[in-house]
Amino acid sequence: QNHLLSATGTTIFTVMSALAVQHGAINLGQGFPDYDGPEDVIEAAAAALKDGRNQYPPLTGVPELRRAVAEANRRFYGIEVDPDREVVVTSGATEAITACLMAVLNPGDECVLLEPLYDTYLPVVRLLGAVPKLVRLSPPKWELPRAELAAAFGPKTKAILLNTPMNPSSKVFTAAELAFIADLLERHDAYAVCDEVYEHLTYDGWKHIPLMTLPGMRPRCMRVGSAGKTFSLTGWKVGYVTCDATLQPNVAKAHQNLTFTTPPNLQRAVAVGLAKDDGYFASLSGELQARRDLLAEGLARLGFAVLPAQGSYFVTADIRSVGFAGDDVAFCRALTEEAKVTAIPVTAFYAGPDAPNHYARFAFCKNEAVLREALARIGAWV
Amino acid sequence: QNHLLSATGTTIFTVMSALAVQHGAINLGQGFPDYDGPEDVIEAAAAALKDGRNQYPPLTGVPELRRAVAEANRRFYGIEVDPDREVVVTSGATEAITACLMAVLNPGDECVLLEPLYDTYLPVVRLLGAVPKLVRLSPPKWELPRAELAAAFGPKTKAILLNTPMNPSSKVFTAAELAFIADLLERHDAYAVCDEVYEHLTYDGWKHIPLMTLPGMRPRCMRVGSAGKTFSLTGWKVGYVTCDATLQPNVAKAHQNLTFTTPPNLQRAVAVGLAKDDGYFASLSGELQARRDLLAEGLARLGFAVLPAQGSYFVTADIRSVGFAGDDVAFCRALTEEAKVTAIPVTAFYAGPDAPNHYARFAFCKNEAVLREALARIGAWV
Ligand SMILES: CSCCC(=O)C(=O)O
Ligand SMILES: CSCCC(=O)C(=O)O
Repeated sequence: QNHLLSATGTTIFTVMSALAVQHGAINLGQGFPDYDGPEDVIEAAAAALKDGRNQYPPLTGVPELRRAVAEANRRFYGIEVDPDREVVVTSGATEAITACLMAVLNPGDECVLLEPLYDTYLPVVRLLGAVPKLVRLSPPKWELPRAELAAAFGPKTKAILLNTPMNPSSKVFTAAELAFIADLLERHDAYAVCDEVYEHLTYDGWKHIPLMTLPGMRPRCMRVGSAGKTFSLTGWKVGYVTCDATLQPNVAKAHQNLTFTTPPNLQRAVAVGLAKDDGYFASLSGELQARRDLLAEGLARLGFAVLPAQGSYFVTADIRSVGFAGDDVAFCRALTEEAKVTAIPVTAFYAGPDAPNHYARFAFCKNEAVLREALARIGAWV
Repeated sequence: QNHLLSATGTTIFTVMSALAVQHGAINLGQGFPDYDGPEDVIEAAAAALKDGRNQYPPLTGVPELRRAVAEANRRFYGIEVDPDREVVVTSGATEAITACLMAVLNPGDECVLLEPLYDTYLPVVRLLGAVPKLVRLSPPKWELPRAELAAAFGPKTKAILLNTPMNPSSKVFTAAELAFIADLLERHDAYAVCDEVYEHLTYDGWKHIPLMTLPGMRPRCMRVGSAGKTFSLTGWKVGYVTCDATLQPNVAKAHQNLTFTTPPNLQRAVAVGLAKDDGYFASLSGELQARRDLLAEGLARLGFAVLPAQGSYFVTADIRSVGFAGDDVAFCRALTEEAKVTAIPVTAFYAGPDAPNHYARFAFCKNEAVLREALARIGAWV
């Protein structure tokens, strides 16, 4: 069997979700809402099952969704996109990221990855025979270590995988940070796979900036969006890649080998979603910001040092501040088994040794009552 | 960019479907029905959108579908399967096949492939750094070349990819042929990825036999099924892998890196479909056999030598028998542009040189009126 996969554990998200079920814990681990997405989008998906379009849609996506993705690029970021030659719809952002990496990496190529990282990045880079170059961001400030980043680029660098807003740090990269990365990409003639699934989930006035919008970056970037995150429908598994017409054919061919197409009824419903008015997107982030505040302030009241969360579904808390003696894995296990609340240990997002091991990540994309109950349970326990 | 993908053309199915649209041709190319799947399955998918299960389902699939897959294995083939440890639901059979190859192949491993072959097999084997060993079946008899097959196995052989019922040859492998393959797998300690997406589409009393049911094969086989083919809903992209508990963890981890999960509402609807009574499966193959007869007999009346089709969606015809002078690619292009009917050149399913180049593949999974009109157009043209 494949050695890389045999050596990999089951994803932490599955492990912790299963543990949560086993112990009847409130699951603030895996990042998914416990409320449903917009009713009109769900209705559109149901209606689209019934007008005879249940066979293979075009490889790169139904025209409605490709047009909607192009239009969203223009509306939110001023990016002009040809829906026929610069968009590929995928079966979720995970597939999109794998397809983008597959599109550009050859065996032996180096790919720069920033820790903390989502848990498919590293295995996929390795399965493609490419060489990961890890650069570490560390809590509590999650600063971009510019010297280390520059040192990670070299003659073999083919790509960087950049996640902003970033999971689990909840960091939104600034224009200055992105400019630093863009300069490295130009100088090393490299591509960027841009995991921007949390693009619409930013708070406190933080604005998501796609790397693609920086000077010179348009032909270097493959920008990945997620309907699951944008419409609180994480199970639908509809993602989309926006990239230059010079890159799109290889992304499409990777997609062809990975899933070939994505269910047309869900694609058509996501097109309806992307056409929603600004009010939808404002209330999406507004409501999540309120949930974040509820959880972050509650944890702070219980004595946790809670790190700022500029975007995404997550807040991270320092477990030492409540006097917990063990590491983050022990904390998350004890929290699940004893307090009946599940969180994710932040070390799970680090591949290298000596990772910061005293932080836990809590998802706040949950109903207010659930967040309150979780806080009450944690409060009784600490 | 990735050299292998850059060197690959867009899939023949997309090329020919686009050409069909451009010329207003009846599309008997890409294999998808022009009729809808069962109403109750579609209704189940719509209903399942509305009870709040739109977030990530379990990595290996919703329990309902894993149980239904296990039950279908027992009912149709007497295979006993643990739904929790021996099933992985995927986003279509394409992903399932890629996941199974990824689960077992290491760079440098050899993988035996039988020509004619579906067009993702070879690129995926190569993208994984493995070495394809091609063994050729040829029309009109599509006999398994036993000596060549045995010679293709060696000390580096890790797996075979076996497609039965086979596309485009429409061959159903016999018990004797499968026993020959099983013996090679035992002797070389190799795995089999079994693409059995057409398992329920067999005709004239031919019965599909999973390689997995042969003595000793249970722990060596990853058996791939397709809801798209079984329920005439090719756009839904729900596939399922059945394999031993020793193989399932790596298949699940490959799936985690490729798509992570599959839309829960479609999974739940497919579970409803798999529980249908025997009458459904009998009428599925009965109706397709009638469509096959209509098209095959019609083509024969027009002078084509039509090869027998024991299973799948396709019949293959010898283009020389109507006096066409060019090769299969020229034929399919002329047929689309002039006769306004689209077929697929069989050379597209061969990777090696000197492939048989005077056969065209026609899909018969179409409404009777469409097949009749296609025959009329071809008749007026030849
Ligand atoms: C695809 S499961 C993980 C969901 C997620 O993005 C997270 O929890 O970090
Ligand atoms: C996934 S597109 C191709 C459909 C098919 O199996 C075929 O036409 O051979």
